[in-house]
Amino acid sequence: MASPSKHRMKRQSWYIRLMHKRLPITKWLPEYNSQKALADIIAGITVGLTVIPQALAYATLAGLPPQYGLYSSFVGCFMYIVFGSCKDITLGPTALLALMTYEQIQGRNFDYAVLLCFLTGIVQLIMGLLHLGVLIDFISVPVTVGFTSATSVIIAVSQLKGLLGLQFKSRGFIDTVKKVIVNIPNAKLADSLLGLTCIVILLLMRKIKDLDLPPHRRGLKRAVWLFSTSRNAIVVLVCSIMAFIWEKNSESPFKLTGTVKEGLPPLSLPPFGTVVDGKNVTLLEMCADLGSSIVLVPIIGVLGNVAIAKAFASGESVDATQELITLSFANILGSFLSAMPITGSFSRSAVNHASGVATQFGSLYTGILVLLALSLLTPYFYFIPKASLAAVIICAVIFMIEYEVVKPMWRSRRADLVPAFATFALCLVVGVELGIVAGVLLNVILLLYPSARPQLEAEIVTNHYGLNYLLITVGNSLYFPGVEYIRQYVTRAASKQSGNVPVVIDCRYVLGADFTAAKGLCALSNSLSARGQPLLLLSPRASVASVFSGAGSSVLVVLNANELDVTLQEITGQIALSVNPDEPKRPYTSLKQDESLEVIVAEENASPLLTTVHRKKISEVDDT
Amino acid sequence: MASPSKHRMKRQSWYIRLMHKRLPITKWLPEYNSQKALADIIAGITVGLTVIPQALAYATLAGLPPQYGLYSSFVGCFMYIVFGSCKDITLGPTALLALMTYEQIQGRNFDYAVLLCFLTGIVQLIMGLLHLGVLIDFISVPVTVGFTSATSVIIAVSQLKGLLGLQFKSRGFIDTVKKVIVNIPNAKLADSLLGLTCIVILLLMRKIKDLDLPPHRRGLKRAVWLFSTSRNAIVVLVCSIMAFIWEKNSESPFKLTGTVKEGLPPLSLPPFGTVVDGKNVTLLEMCADLGSSIVLVPIIGVLGNVAIAKAFASGESVDATQELITLSFANILGSFLSAMPITGSFSRSAVNHASGVATQFGSLYTGILVLLALSLLTPYFYFIPKASLAAVIICAVIFMIEYEVVKPMWRSRRADLVPAFATFALCLVVGVELGIVAGVLLNVILLLYPSARPQLEAEIVTNHYGLNYLLITVGNSLYFPGVEYIRQYVTRAASKQSGNVPVVIDCRYVLGADFTAAKGLCALSNSLSARGQPLLLLSPRASVASVFSGAGSSVLVVLNANELDVTLQEITGQIALSVNPDEPKRPYTSLKQDESLEVIVAEENASPLLTTVHRKKISEVDDT
Repeated sequence: MASPSKHRMKRQSWYIRLMHKRLPITKWLPEYNSQKALADIIAGITVGLTVIPQALAYATLAGLPPQYGLYSSFVGCFMYIVFGSCKDITLGPTALLALMTYEQIQGRNFDYAVLLCFLTGIVQLIMGLLHLGVLIDFISVPVTVGFTSATSVIIAVSQLKGLLGLQFKSRGFIDTVKKVIVNIPNAKLADSLLGLTCIVILLLMRKIKDLDLPPHRRGLKRAVWLFSTSRNAIVVLVCSIMAFIWEKNSESPFKLTGTVKEGLPPLSLPPFGTVVDGKNVTLLEMCADLGSSIVLVPIIGVLGNVAIAKAFASGESVDATQELITLSFANILGSFLSAMPITGSFSRSAVNHASGVATQFGSLYTGILVLLALSLLTPYFYFIPKASLAAVIICAVIFMIEYEVVKPMWRSRRADLVPAFATFALCLVVGVELGIVAGVLLNVILLLYPSARPQLEAEIVTNHYGLNYLLITVGNSLYFPGVEYIRQYVTRAASKQSGNVPVVIDCRYVLGADFTAAKGLCALSNSLSARGQPLLLLSPRASVASVFSGAGSSVLVVLNANELDVTLQEITGQIALSVNPDEPKRPYTSLKQDESLEVIVAEENASPLLTTVHRKKISEVDDT
Repeated sequence: MASPSKHRMKRQSWYIRLMHKRLPITKWLPEYNSQKALADIIAGITVGLTVIPQALAYATLAGLPPQYGLYSSFVGCFMYIVFGSCKDITLGPTALLALMTYEQIQGRNFDYAVLLCFLTGIVQLIMGLLHLGVLIDFISVPVTVGFTSATSVIIAVSQLKGLLGLQFKSRGFIDTVKKVIVNIPNAKLADSLLGLTCIVILLLMRKIKDLDLPPHRRGLKRAVWLFSTSRNAIVVLVCSIMAFIWEKNSESPFKLTGTVKEGLPPLSLPPFGTVVDGKNVTLLEMCADLGSSIVLVPIIGVLGNVAIAKAFASGESVDATQELITLSFANILGSFLSAMPITGSFSRSAVNHASGVATQFGSLYTGILVLLALSLLTPYFYFIPKASLAAVIICAVIFMIEYEVVKPMWRSRRADLVPAFATFALCLVVGVELGIVAGVLLNVILLLYPSARPQLEAEIVTNHYGLNYLLITVGNSLYFPGVEYIRQYVTRAASKQSGNVPVVIDCRYVLGADFTAAKGLCALSNSLSARGQPLLLLSPRASVASVFSGAGSSVLVVLNANELDVTLQEITGQIALSVNPDEPKRPYTSLKQDESLEVIVAEENASPLLTTVHRKKISEVDDT
């Protein structure tokens, strides 16, 4: 089928695939062109203009001096160019990790933040090496939808403060909503006007991209696209120039970003020891102080990062292990440059995406801009009005609220709305980190439910010979959480039948079984046979049958309907013979050998529905 | 089928069944007879003789005065007679809960132990009312085996101290083993001799029960049985008399149980407030101090109790909810009588079982004996040699080490040995409470494994028309943890085929699907169709097909092999027509209506293997 030359080509590409996987830059760089470069420059600068004030704000949120936010904002960008697998993600400080860092800084010093950054990287490296990226498979689409939507709402609401020029301190989403409502009368007219105008302009600029231009006006089409995708940078630039001119003449009516401290961070070892209140604290004592956050911060970081990656992957696979490795490198290196823990930023990734970023290279310009900001550009960032930045962030995140997914989810599988809405509500009420963990747990519990409460159906069947039997169809595999339930169900169903009606369990949908299930069905068989009712298993798979026979089970196994009829005839004869209650009941032991079972059952399972002439097994498709 | 009179009888028994379930005494009391009474008296007194020194030891372990152990030993016994569902279980103080109580007493006072007992009861009552007994279904046989075996080993080793007359303090199993080995040279000759002799005598007395006596010697047979089953009481009594005589003349060479403080506990409200270091502590502050143990102690109590019940149930169903309710009543009432938290005791239940207890009524004599001990018998218990009690406990628990279950487990399902041995090892190393929790978690992870890493098989099939297609058989339901894995597998398998070979996913074993899976397969379909390879789902169940169509999936669904062949013919024609790479690929949308799907698939699933003449659905078998 495959020609020899093609085959050789496939062989060659093995290590290239690995390289593409572990160094994604090798995949997209060869296809890089000027069009992509332009898109990346626009997006990178736009994100850079967003990250600087965010970094300052998040550093303050974490209880650190403002420059720590900028220190945390460039290393991740450079690392992500080489190792990152999703073009839209930009690494850096986030509100979530800033909050978690804050908890560890209180009453201590800044060294704890940097050490936490280092340990986060180490734990993520360990997780990456152990391929614990598999844990990410347990974040479903509903949980992702709930998480991203809630995060969007939280970020949008948190930006209302800057948008309306309000001044208050708040903790959590509910408190922020309350404070915004209470403080509405104190809204600054100039900030509110600027902010709302920016939002309207941004939405309009976003919309013109979709204008139906005549197909022959290629140049115009391209210009419109450029104008539309660089809208964030344009709006921020225009507002800053406005504020600059205003400020030159008199005082600007807008709240501005303000002074940013200059200078690059020193390159030094992470603080493996510190001094708190004049007392030396060793590395071990610092670790003990950090406690569970050493594990929680890396996990929440990866969870958030991969959730964002999945949200932007638009159906493509997300390589969780690669994201783990990238994050770990970024955090470890970051800790040598006084960074706090970083991960993928949801709002900036949204800005990046909305600005039309083409490759991971966009992060280069973000990183350079941060470095320039620290060393040279500080005076210019002073004039960015806070309201215009708030408008940019709000316009980026409101399109991430995935209300439109509710309808297909409802039509597809209503049960999936439960983890989606639960995650959404929990993220808003108890915070995003607890919210996503609770959402995943809830989803796993829903996943376990069919194991614990399998679908059961009981029917009375009359066969060709006029014999009645009770047919129980189990709609799930036989594992320990469901055994008690099945036993109680079958016992009740059997006790409702008069006489010695045999009980037949149809194993069509039983794909696996365990020792507990085998023991449970064995006990069920014993108690039914004490009532004079034999228990039979109808056509179990070979693997299931061997679990039962291995457990020393005394359950009768029949392979198909014919054998069932014959066996039922035999048994009914036996029961008729042994009506004397004093005489011990003949135990119904398995009549089959394991070997013969294997062969016959294998044949039964060989998909009789398919009309096959030739089959060939592919052994090369092994586990990844 | 059922005669009318029989039917009426079944109807009547509805509330009787409920009564039997919630007040198990109503089930066994009517069948009570003198033979059972004799067995219960012997067992009850034997357990009573065991519980008294244990209670004193466990109270000390919990950091309480000795009498608190006895205060905790009778309420549970009386409650269990009425509400208990497993004849072998005796409630009372246990080493495990004593240890957990100790953690809460340190630096506080005894009121915390009694309040913890009260709160344990309340939490268990809530769990019982919410039917959270379902949690117990998640303790599998392997975990139970690992837990009981480890507990047996821990208890046996802990008794070596008393058996050899050693004196040391130890924490945990490993430490105890170390200390025993180090202290072997300090073993007291008299205690060691007495203890080992007692063990030999007990094992011999246990063995003579199985002697093959001639069937006509009924009287002798009965006497031998009585002698054998009352061996614990006989050995303890003989040893005590020996020690009493010895002590009368000079000092006894054995370590004795010693003085037990007399008097019944006062009946009073649990301490809803206390005084620590002269400072008043309110109920809320006490609860805050107790922290997570308010939830952990009740759960560990129930876990242990149900694990014991399952171990003794020998395959019968264990009513976890009933055990919860019984425990909650015992703890709540106990807290009015200065008890510490209680649950089913593994060692005493083993003694109870080994002494041949017939019904829950045996607990009456245990309870009375404890009351007598507190009020009257204290001077007599003084003389019980500790070594003889250690021998009784060791002989009871060594038969609970379930090494013999390893062989059937190996033959039945080797994977089940992992949670069994892990639970065993963890219980020994990190303690029984953490051990059983870790074991259950591990078992649940193993349960989730097929969801995350389903069995996949790829085959190249050539059909009647000579068309090749790639057939992928998925050996599990399609839920979110496995979707990424399936996508990667199918993508790899498909990329290894030359040309536009269609990919067919056989949904025979797919019992359910969720939105994430639908979205994932949709994305897979899109990426395959971009390569010119169509994706088809072969005979999914109606419920699965509706999940896919509801999610707006563009995957082609075919109901059987004939339809597959026809559709493949059509598609191949289309592919041949659309070889122009610039021309957009025709999307493969589902051709079927939901309604028609429902009907046809329902027919497909109607067990074609069964030769049925008549079927009748039983709707009365509803969920319990």
